[in-house]
Amino acid sequence: MVSSLSTAYDRLLTKLKRAYVVETVGGVLGWDEQVNLPPESAELRAEQMAVMAELSHQASTDPEIEALLRDLEAARSQLSPDQEVVVRWTRREYDRVTKLPAAFVAERARQSSAAYHAWAECRKKNDFSGYAPFLERQLALAQEEAALLGWGDRAYDYAIDKHDPGMTTAIVAALFAELKEGLLPLVRQIVAAATPTPPDLFRGFPVEAQRVFLREVTEKLGFDYRRGRIDVSLHPFCGGAPTDVRMTTRFNEDAPLDSLFSSIHETGHGMYEQGLAIPDLGTPLGQSVGMGVHESQSRLWENQVSRSRAFWAYFEPRFRELFAAQIESVDSETLYRAINAVEPTLIRVEADEVTYNLHILLRFEIEQRLFKGELAVRDLPATWNALSGEIVGLVPPNDTLGVLQDVHWSGGAFGYFPSYCIGNMMAAQLWYTVLREIPGLESDFARGDFSRLLGWLRTKIHREGRRHDTLALVQRVTGEPLSPRHLLRYLRERYLPLYAKPAGNA
Amino acid sequence: MVSSLSTAYDRLLTKLKRAYVVETVGGVLGWDEQVNLPPESAELRAEQMAVMAELSHQASTDPEIEALLRDLEAARSQLSPDQEVVVRWTRREYDRVTKLPAAFVAERARQSSAAYHAWAECRKKNDFSGYAPFLERQLALAQEEAALLGWGDRAYDYAIDKHDPGMTTAIVAALFAELKEGLLPLVRQIVAAATPTPPDLFRGFPVEAQRVFLREVTEKLGFDYRRGRIDVSLHPFCGGAPTDVRMTTRFNEDAPLDSLFSSIHETGHGMYEQGLAIPDLGTPLGQSVGMGVHESQSRLWENQVSRSRAFWAYFEPRFRELFAAQIESVDSETLYRAINAVEPTLIRVEADEVTYNLHILLRFEIEQRLFKGELAVRDLPATWNALSGEIVGLVPPNDTLGVLQDVHWSGGAFGYFPSYCIGNMMAAQLWYTVLREIPGLESDFARGDFSRLLGWLRTKIHREGRRHDTLALVQRVTGEPLSPRHLLRYLRERYLPLYAKPAGNA
Repeated sequence: MVSSLSTAYDRLLTKLKRAYVVETVGGVLGWDEQVNLPPESAELRAEQMAVMAELSHQASTDPEIEALLRDLEAARSQLSPDQEVVVRWTRREYDRVTKLPAAFVAERARQSSAAYHAWAECRKKNDFSGYAPFLERQLALAQEEAALLGWGDRAYDYAIDKHDPGMTTAIVAALFAELKEGLLPLVRQIVAAATPTPPDLFRGFPVEAQRVFLREVTEKLGFDYRRGRIDVSLHPFCGGAPTDVRMTTRFNEDAPLDSLFSSIHETGHGMYEQGLAIPDLGTPLGQSVGMGVHESQSRLWENQVSRSRAFWAYFEPRFRELFAAQIESVDSETLYRAINAVEPTLIRVEADEVTYNLHILLRFEIEQRLFKGELAVRDLPATWNALSGEIVGLVPPNDTLGVLQDVHWSGGAFGYFPSYCIGNMMAAQLWYTVLREIPGLESDFARGDFSRLLGWLRTKIHREGRRHDTLALVQRVTGEPLSPRHLLRYLRERYLPLYAKPAGNA
Repeated sequence: MVSSLSTAYDRLLTKLKRAYVVETVGGVLGWDEQVNLPPESAELRAEQMAVMAELSHQASTDPEIEALLRDLEAARSQLSPDQEVVVRWTRREYDRVTKLPAAFVAERARQSSAAYHAWAECRKKNDFSGYAPFLERQLALAQEEAALLGWGDRAYDYAIDKHDPGMTTAIVAALFAELKEGLLPLVRQIVAAATPTPPDLFRGFPVEAQRVFLREVTEKLGFDYRRGRIDVSLHPFCGGAPTDVRMTTRFNEDAPLDSLFSSIHETGHGMYEQGLAIPDLGTPLGQSVGMGVHESQSRLWENQVSRSRAFWAYFEPRFRELFAAQIESVDSETLYRAINAVEPTLIRVEADEVTYNLHILLRFEIEQRLFKGELAVRDLPATWNALSGEIVGLVPPNDTLGVLQDVHWSGGAFGYFPSYCIGNMMAAQLWYTVLREIPGLESDFARGDFSRLLGWLRTKIHREGRRHDTLALVQRVTGEPLSPRHLLRYLRERYLPLYAKPAGNA
């Protein structure tokens, strides 16, 4: 690479890092809004967020970036593989952010805000028809966005690619079809055998002790509290930057496992971010691949690791120490079954890891039909309810518990739901790979040692940044293409023995 | 006002408000850095702060502001009084921020950072000569800044005006001379009579209960927690915006009064901010006058109000309820004397409200000599120690406890110290005015009602924004010029009777 190119590349990195720093300021404001903001300052915060969005947009659409990209693209053959990754991804993002006319971006922001409020209100009132016009508008905008960016009539492909680069409707459809074929009978088999968790099993777990346990667990798993923190917010999330990961949780004295597993989930996201290469932050080399890979990290820690017998072999004594009175009458096997309870539910976010995937299959089916024009928004409730009966096995008694339950579409986030299930498939596939590559891994867990697993993920996934897209990364790390077989195997292996025992024993 | 002028004025307000919003984002980052930041993210935060400082500078130096100001200034006679205030102050601030060459601003920032670290290091090592070159450079920069802004050789006047608009060295010198004449004998009289607080009087006050008491007190005083909050940081401060005031405190189990009074102090600052006119935020009409007036608010609430017998008549029962075991053996009079303890100290920030003013007289004397060129930086320690003996009555045994104790000069903040004492004088003068205008005010306090005082301050001070500078505001509200007489009267009336009782009684 000649010196002028090297200069152009360095200059590009400087520009990208500056845009990144501006963007992270918006992240601090967003976190603070959820965690700290006094109620009567919502208006000022909205103004602060708007001005930062504008400044962030300015930084990432700096015309000098275009000029530098052209110089570097013209000399593509002289770029190193890493430089090529940076240039390719920057081009993708730069085009997406500059090719949309300002009027379109403003209209989309306006509509998203209006649709969000309409959704919140209509969900409360079980009023789908009040929400329908907003959803129609969001759907039209999503299609317009795809067209403006050159995806023609492949709007749903664009929506999927936006969250999981390289994925298409056809790829997801094939994966999900295979998953569905195996999952539906498996769910029936597990649900038939499963004993429901006794009601009132958990009562009065003091928040302070929950906080202590949660901190000890997440620290043991490998979350670095010198580069992050956890606080309380209404809805748990993980934001911030790799040196400053901001996770949140919420506590309920009568549901200690909810906060624990939700925090472990966010810890998985947080450790992915903490594992990105710090010197490359702000560039594609120090950035997560997409939603599916991100979700694979959160799910792997939440499910494969933290719902395992090995994990609880280590943590149960401490759990009993902290909650001696509350858990006195609950034996180990009952506790473990509560941790791995399976019960179909109407609400996606309340679902266990077995039936969760059914909710995604339902939404993927619906989104495809909406984008193909086979389903009109006004007919959504009827179709939703029918498909929910077929796939989830439950028919919502009203739209609040059905088609109105999720916030995503109100913000125009179509094509997002599949990521959750891609993450689940990828997590199981990574799980069997690492079990093969690191013999005795689960006995590490039983000793409270998760460092070999984290080290493996650091090397294989986190440090790679965006060098490979989702499918290539899975192939590279596991030696085979992404497949639902591993998730099905995992669910069978974990849940069938658990519920094969005679009912009534627990 | 003709329509084009009205348009120009509205446009100016828009520009000012935008600059204000950008500036407040930096405020959130600064608060978060002190309260939340994980230790290993200092570097990213420094980058975020730098980029926000740059964006804030851009917003407040927008050339369109200059053009709008010229149009409005050319038609000054047609402006309403409020518009005239906005134009006059905006011109002052705009000139100050645009007339300094970028190279000078960068150099000043670099020097301040270097001098801060040198100060922290040299204070620890009691090494004044290591710090001296940095201080010399800061002094030279302060003089250069004044010259660049057209203050010629009146650099110290500029430094004072920067913190308290309209104040000059001559005015402060006259006020302080009168104060000193009355204060020195009064301090001797009080100190001779005062009984020292018994050591170990306060031990083991649980932080949680301190937090509860502090919250109840600050809420009763009138701090609006829907528009603000209080958190913990290493050094207490009050920042944020009027709808989102961010105060901090720190807790020590063996010094419950420290945290309480420091929080009441910050509450005074916070309530001034909360009292500014929300629709005028970002403009001089919704902005505090200066440091002296700000300090008058914090000191009035901290001292005149919260060290009074009436205040404790109301709060002592609750204090005893929360700290029954800790305070069992302390009778009411001993508690009240501990709250109003007077004891000369070497360290300004540890001083009581009587001797505090001596520390400011010392610093004002030193700053004047430095700026006049009568005192060389290398001779500072000797002069400091000599003057400290004369004014404070104590000679520091080393520079760490003497000339190196304050952070201010390392950041180039000359002319700041006088504000503290101006605030004390103004607080006492406001105090006697409000006692005259609202008969029975102190009996409100004894019922836990502070609303009439806060309402009075809201109307007389807070809502005025920058319509009047410090001296004009004092004249307007109290009916006479700012004078140290009221502070001297207040100290005599509060402390002489307290310590006139025979010693050894407490």
